[in-house]
Amino acid sequence: MRVRDEYAPWLALGRVKGLGGVGFKKLAASFADPTEAFFASPAELEQVEGLHRDVIEGLVNFSGWLEIDDELRRVRAAGIDIVRFTSPGYPARLRMIADPPPFLYTKGALVAEDERAVGIVGSRSASDYGRRVARDLARGLASLGFTVVSGMARGIDGAAHESALRAGGRTVAVLGSGVERPYPPEHDGLYQRISEHGAVVSELPVGTRPMAFNFPARNRLISGLSLGVVVVEATEKSGSLITAAMALEQGREVFAVPGEAGASRSRGAHRLIRQGAKLVETVDDIIEEIAPQLARRAGGTTEAPARTLPRNAGENTRKIFTLLQDNPLQVDQVIERSGLAAAQVLEILLELELLGFVRQSPGHLYSAER
Amino acid sequence: MRVRDEYAPWLALGRVKGLGGVGFKKLAASFADPTEAFFASPAELEQVEGLHRDVIEGLVNFSGWLEIDDELRRVRAAGIDIVRFTSPGYPARLRMIADPPPFLYTKGALVAEDERAVGIVGSRSASDYGRRVARDLARGLASLGFTVVSGMARGIDGAAHESALRAGGRTVAVLGSGVERPYPPEHDGLYQRISEHGAVVSELPVGTRPMAFNFPARNRLISGLSLGVVVVEATEKSGSLITAAMALEQGREVFAVPGEAGASRSRGAHRLIRQGAKLVETVDDIIEEIAPQLARRAGGTTEAPARTLPRNAGENTRKIFTLLQDNPLQVDQVIERSGLAAAQVLEILLELELLGFVRQSPGHLYSAER
Repeated sequence: MRVRDEYAPWLALGRVKGLGGVGFKKLAASFADPTEAFFASPAELEQVEGLHRDVIEGLVNFSGWLEIDDELRRVRAAGIDIVRFTSPGYPARLRMIADPPPFLYTKGALVAEDERAVGIVGSRSASDYGRRVARDLARGLASLGFTVVSGMARGIDGAAHESALRAGGRTVAVLGSGVERPYPPEHDGLYQRISEHGAVVSELPVGTRPMAFNFPARNRLISGLSLGVVVVEATEKSGSLITAAMALEQGREVFAVPGEAGASRSRGAHRLIRQGAKLVETVDDIIEEIAPQLARRAGGTTEAPARTLPRNAGENTRKIFTLLQDNPLQVDQVIERSGLAAAQVLEILLELELLGFVRQSPGHLYSAER
Repeated sequence: MRVRDEYAPWLALGRVKGLGGVGFKKLAASFADPTEAFFASPAELEQVEGLHRDVIEGLVNFSGWLEIDDELRRVRAAGIDIVRFTSPGYPARLRMIADPPPFLYTKGALVAEDERAVGIVGSRSASDYGRRVARDLARGLASLGFTVVSGMARGIDGAAHESALRAGGRTVAVLGSGVERPYPPEHDGLYQRISEHGAVVSELPVGTRPMAFNFPARNRLISGLSLGVVVVEATEKSGSLITAAMALEQGREVFAVPGEAGASRSRGAHRLIRQGAKLVETVDDIIEEIAPQLARRAGGTTEAPARTLPRNAGENTRKIFTLLQDNPLQVDQVIERSGLAAAQVLEILLELELLGFVRQSPGHLYSAER
């Protein structure tokens, strides 16, 4: 095979028949660079556990290179980035799911802070109540430095993205179409702003039209990017329930917002709650549940935790965090050295702790996570 | 002690200082007839495990007989019945709690069917939504032959009683005042109807005015009489949360009806759901949860299960139940012998099973519980 654009074999991995995210993950487990699969012999590929014979044939006989060259031209013309599975910019949480995409098309940029993401999804035909709750939750999450992930659909999705942006926070939209093809049309402006102040992502080839059968797979990316997913309003047949199911499968938290008994738009959320999803009224209910996860993660896993405070962190928060980066301190010492009021210090410490930036040891000794 | 009215020593048990329901239960465990405690020597009473010295003195030196004679006259004049702990008419579930009252004052009569009771409680300042749900649930429960228990307060309580009566079902009101003193005044008519088509009960002496400090103790009777308690609307400081806590302590189910996020009247219910209460939208959600309890109970405990179908059971239900009382039958045989449509038979069998009247053995053999 002649030398090509370094992205070409990645796009090719996305087009090998029958490979999919699950097969791709098997390759990623066997090859430091999964695109080496195209250079491997059938005998070598047979060593990859669980890789189907037809996938091996698909890899060995892959012949779609011209189309890929063509797509890469369109990708560049449209100002689209490609984030490969092996890139440090590929979302760490998404890397952990059973069927991660080999790469993501992105408009705008995914950043390290997006690892602290929460999904907000729900009905396209949301009620005023549902939209209000979606806005409140998105604003609250954004102001705490969380990235809000959703699907840019009408209703709840749009309200969540919009509100996160207005709060000066980050938001990520995962499309069920090519990343350059926003849908619905009335969200064109929103799409622009998300790609400027957050990121729009898709795993689907440039030019893919929004088709309903792509949405379930898209939903696994919404939950895959997130610590947890909040279902705001969902009928019993809502795609949001698929997102919730994916989240569970991926070991992510599932949250659901209650509504009135008998309200058809809340039936799905109520079912989730009965099945064990956490009932959520305010952002605090979400934070309470994901704080241990953040702490665990900061405690030292294979993921590189984001050690920079959210951009919107206040001056006093930065001051305290810097103090603790120098030395573990007692609360009294933090109060003294920061020159801030005790109540304010306690509030900031709690917030930093919940967000996983600060750890409390016995004896009320606070230290910055590293 | 001279021979008195047979009820007098029971009323006296209710007035011995420091005895209470817990102490009374200890006496009930030691004496076949707990009123024998008045005839027992201090030495004998000291044998009762955990009975405090001052309670023993209170029993030995009890001197309130004249007041009791006086109360008994008033009880009779007001047409009030007294149901003693040792009477077969005393509610079996209530007998099981840790602090049962020695007796209940009743207006109207408690019947065997009242063992299948569900409590519905909630805010006095209920919303239209809350009242509507309370009515729907009470009507549904009543039409399935359940007795609806509540506290006859304004708001949710009143709506639940009212709706159960309108559905032709039974309802029991537990008062936090003397049983002859309905409160609030606008429920005078409701009180009349409950005492005619159900029962009003209280453990408080005739003449006791409705005082807030009596309500928590009253709430333990609401849950104590019930298989489970549904909290429809409750603020965070609502007495309904006390009822829910009592229910948990008594091993009864706790159900809560959701509302919109941020609705202050639903905050208590949402908290309960987060703590593990079952989210309830319809009667089916309640039945699903208590069906196993009913089945267990019917399976043979110390309680005598009510083997009579609810009064409002339909003709076909009675027909099928009678068939099964003669012989265990396969579904096919039930269909054949009843002459009813298969779908109808299956529905009735399911209902009878859920209500604990019918048991299904392996091989789809149905038999009537005895």
